[in-house]
Amino acid sequence: MTDEPDTRLVPGDDASADAPAEEAVVEEAPLDERMSLNPDFVRAVDDAVEVEDAAEVRRLTAELHPADVADLMEQMQEGHRGGLFTLLGDAFDAETLVELDEDVRDALVEAIPNDQLALAVAELDTDDAAFVIENLDEDDRAEVLAEMPVRDRLALQAAFDYPDDSAGRMMQREVFAAPAFRTVGEIIDRLRGQDDLPERFYEIYVVDPTFRVVGVVPLSRFLKAPRDTVIETLILEDHPLVRDLMDQEEVAYLFEKYNLISAPVVDESQRLVGMITVDDVVEIVHEERDEDMLALAGVDREEGGLSIPVRQVARSRFTWLSVNLLTAILASFIIGLFDATIAQAVALAVLMPIVASMGGNAGTQTLTVAVRNLATRNLTGANAIRVVTRETIVALINGIAFAILLGVAAGFWYDLAGYGEAGDGLILGCVLAAAMIITMVCAGLAGTLVPLGLQKAGADPAVSSAVFVTTVTDVVGFFAFLGLAAVFLVGR
Amino acid sequence: MTDEPDTRLVPGDDASADAPAEEAVVEEAPLDERMSLNPDFVRAVDDAVEVEDAAEVRRLTAELHPADVADLMEQMQEGHRGGLFTLLGDAFDAETLVELDEDVRDALVEAIPNDQLALAVAELDTDDAAFVIENLDEDDRAEVLAEMPVRDRLALQAAFDYPDDSAGRMMQREVFAAPAFRTVGEIIDRLRGQDDLPERFYEIYVVDPTFRVVGVVPLSRFLKAPRDTVIETLILEDHPLVRDLMDQEEVAYLFEKYNLISAPVVDESQRLVGMITVDDVVEIVHEERDEDMLALAGVDREEGGLSIPVRQVARSRFTWLSVNLLTAILASFIIGLFDATIAQAVALAVLMPIVASMGGNAGTQTLTVAVRNLATRNLTGANAIRVVTRETIVALINGIAFAILLGVAAGFWYDLAGYGEAGDGLILGCVLAAAMIITMVCAGLAGTLVPLGLQKAGADPAVSSAVFVTTVTDVVGFFAFLGLAAVFLVGR
Repeated sequence: MTDEPDTRLVPGDDASADAPAEEAVVEEAPLDERMSLNPDFVRAVDDAVEVEDAAEVRRLTAELHPADVADLMEQMQEGHRGGLFTLLGDAFDAETLVELDEDVRDALVEAIPNDQLALAVAELDTDDAAFVIENLDEDDRAEVLAEMPVRDRLALQAAFDYPDDSAGRMMQREVFAAPAFRTVGEIIDRLRGQDDLPERFYEIYVVDPTFRVVGVVPLSRFLKAPRDTVIETLILEDHPLVRDLMDQEEVAYLFEKYNLISAPVVDESQRLVGMITVDDVVEIVHEERDEDMLALAGVDREEGGLSIPVRQVARSRFTWLSVNLLTAILASFIIGLFDATIAQAVALAVLMPIVASMGGNAGTQTLTVAVRNLATRNLTGANAIRVVTRETIVALINGIAFAILLGVAAGFWYDLAGYGEAGDGLILGCVLAAAMIITMVCAGLAGTLVPLGLQKAGADPAVSSAVFVTTVTDVVGFFAFLGLAAVFLVGR
Repeated sequence: MTDEPDTRLVPGDDASADAPAEEAVVEEAPLDERMSLNPDFVRAVDDAVEVEDAAEVRRLTAELHPADVADLMEQMQEGHRGGLFTLLGDAFDAETLVELDEDVRDALVEAIPNDQLALAVAELDTDDAAFVIENLDEDDRAEVLAEMPVRDRLALQAAFDYPDDSAGRMMQREVFAAPAFRTVGEIIDRLRGQDDLPERFYEIYVVDPTFRVVGVVPLSRFLKAPRDTVIETLILEDHPLVRDLMDQEEVAYLFEKYNLISAPVVDESQRLVGMITVDDVVEIVHEERDEDMLALAGVDREEGGLSIPVRQVARSRFTWLSVNLLTAILASFIIGLFDATIAQAVALAVLMPIVASMGGNAGTQTLTVAVRNLATRNLTGANAIRVVTRETIVALINGIAFAILLGVAAGFWYDLAGYGEAGDGLILGCVLAAAMIITMVCAGLAGTLVPLGLQKAGADPAVSSAVFVTTVTDVVGFFAFLGLAAVFLVGR
């Protein structure tokens, strides 16, 4: 589909194609046709940083967008990132820091001398500046703040007075507001003179004399109106406001639900204090979705990046694997209860992982669907019972299907392989089939009830559900299969 | 954090609080403080639809945003959705169709009579209209198109001429473009007269006389400029254009990477044909992330919704469970090779699931990190070797840690439980430890190499990786543990 490279307005990316013919080496463009960095380009920069060739580093990266420089930093050798920053010097665009993945940014920001960091951060909007230095330790952050111009410092300190993950922390303080009684013409005239406007904005916030927000007017609606229109008459109905103390998850939900591009942030008396734009929100939504996906697999979000030190990754994964070990040991304990049964019919040991594995997979399917629909708020109190019923019926149907399939196959195999006496195959088949149905139904129930219960209890269903569900499917799977076998196959 | 309800400009949501005191029943507001629908409210609408009380249905939903009506439809009983549409009649906002989840939308659109659907769809922008009817079968779609006004029909037919999932299909045809030589003042005057402008837009596309795009000017930049500024001088450097044939995944990547709010869509000769806005892109990004998360758990995206018929869900999950069954049978086969060994030392059957389970979990952790970083293009040819090495080292470290922990525990347990002769515990501990290290390292290798290999081969690493990785960890886990036990513990 994308065999045609996309088009750019500025010929920056293929600047190297314009290189004089004398140059022997034909360089690859930094970006390939999918707009990803070329591995050869990354290596070229790595090499230039290695030999500390500042001119070459600047030449190579001159035409890159900050987002591409950020990608470059993420993909180059970890030891070279600080070097790239230093070699670029004043050619380094502070926006790059905003575009970096959290793990890379935190490591780089830690490594940069505080005075240079203060210079870079002062170029950014308050929301971006706060974002870049929020994970610095207290001392470093104070030092960076001390090096900044007074006005930026005060704005940043105000941002840090808001709780982590609140709208107040996310917002930028640069906003454009207009009094409700002004006309379109007056506002345009005022806009043309003002120099402390946000760099980009999409809506005009209409305020009363006490700076309370009375409405939102999209710029396109504003532009279509005649000069003498009073701005108050252009206000959009039903545009939500964001409270400064609102959690960022709620902010993201509002933006997504109502397709917002930006929203005014207000304090408790509905006074305008800032603005949140969709690009900041998109980051958060992605982080949260990634968090759910990683959490289901037992990985901390902070640890999903590729630049975390090995020791830290190993430690964080160890924690989850330890929890999983408890589940595994519990399963072993169940098996241990039946060791005499297994000793009499070793075929049970051969077959038992099938039951547990099928149950585990069916549970994971159900669980993932439930977690996703909880996150998107499609699974709620209003339809929980219906969803649990649906998943249980699905589990029952598939349980019966696999019970028949595996019961028959295992029965024949047992007789043919000469494990038991004649006729035992039939019993084993029935035992396996019954265990399969029981396990699958429990998987369906656990896969929905566990995340619903955790959510109700105020826990994050993505983080802890998987262990519980696996425990249920393992314990039920082994217990049902070995227990039934002990009674009907071996115990006769 | 969100104990304070958010603020709304229009008192719609608590309209019921204004109800006269005579009314005996105190109704809950439709939305709770997290802006989700109240289950009681959903039930009230369900009840009103049940008894076909059109007036009550209209009263209950009168103040709801289309996004909330969509949520309501998703959460109410499936059989009532068509009823809600019919009872609302002309009070039904066509935007609601756009906001619905795909499975609900497709079922509803299928159920609505084609002439009523045509009426609703004609109200929408081309991109939304195409989106709503794209999954209708050919005949129904043709019928709906035939019922629409000529101009809308032509625009929609042009959209369907583009391939599925292309930028041309996603874009809206309503755009605002200005010739490069015009001044800000002239453009504002023209804007005020024009009536076929897009409802919302964020940028002005600057074109040459042949309608080729020469640049993009954000509205806020445009508004700050004096009246006599020529628009060409305001063009943003480096704003990407989107080719009409570009795949939607690439479009989403561009928007995300460069924090775009909207972008012009051009044909092969760089002529302006449409516009894509960030809200459409956000939908796609979410769909794709969800797809990855569901695929890792063996669930088709189309089947991640809550309104798919049970039979369809069961069939689709059955497919994945069958694939998983092959893995489980392969694992059983490996165990079967060692049935004589297990018969001699039944403790092996008790312990063997621990090795496979730990390997499986370590593999899933690594795999999920790899799949996520492939999707965000952080894992590339430039750093693949480094990432594989890192993951293998992490696996080795945790393998050794759990080897020591479990080896010692299992050794003591074996002796204390009286399974073998004196001294056998030590051997069993060493066997378990060695098997654990081997399995974990293989899990780390498979967890990165499998998705990298699949991606290289052009397959979607999220969809098929999990089976391969589980197969590797199961086979290696059982083979290493039972094989070593056969040689060193039983075979002496």
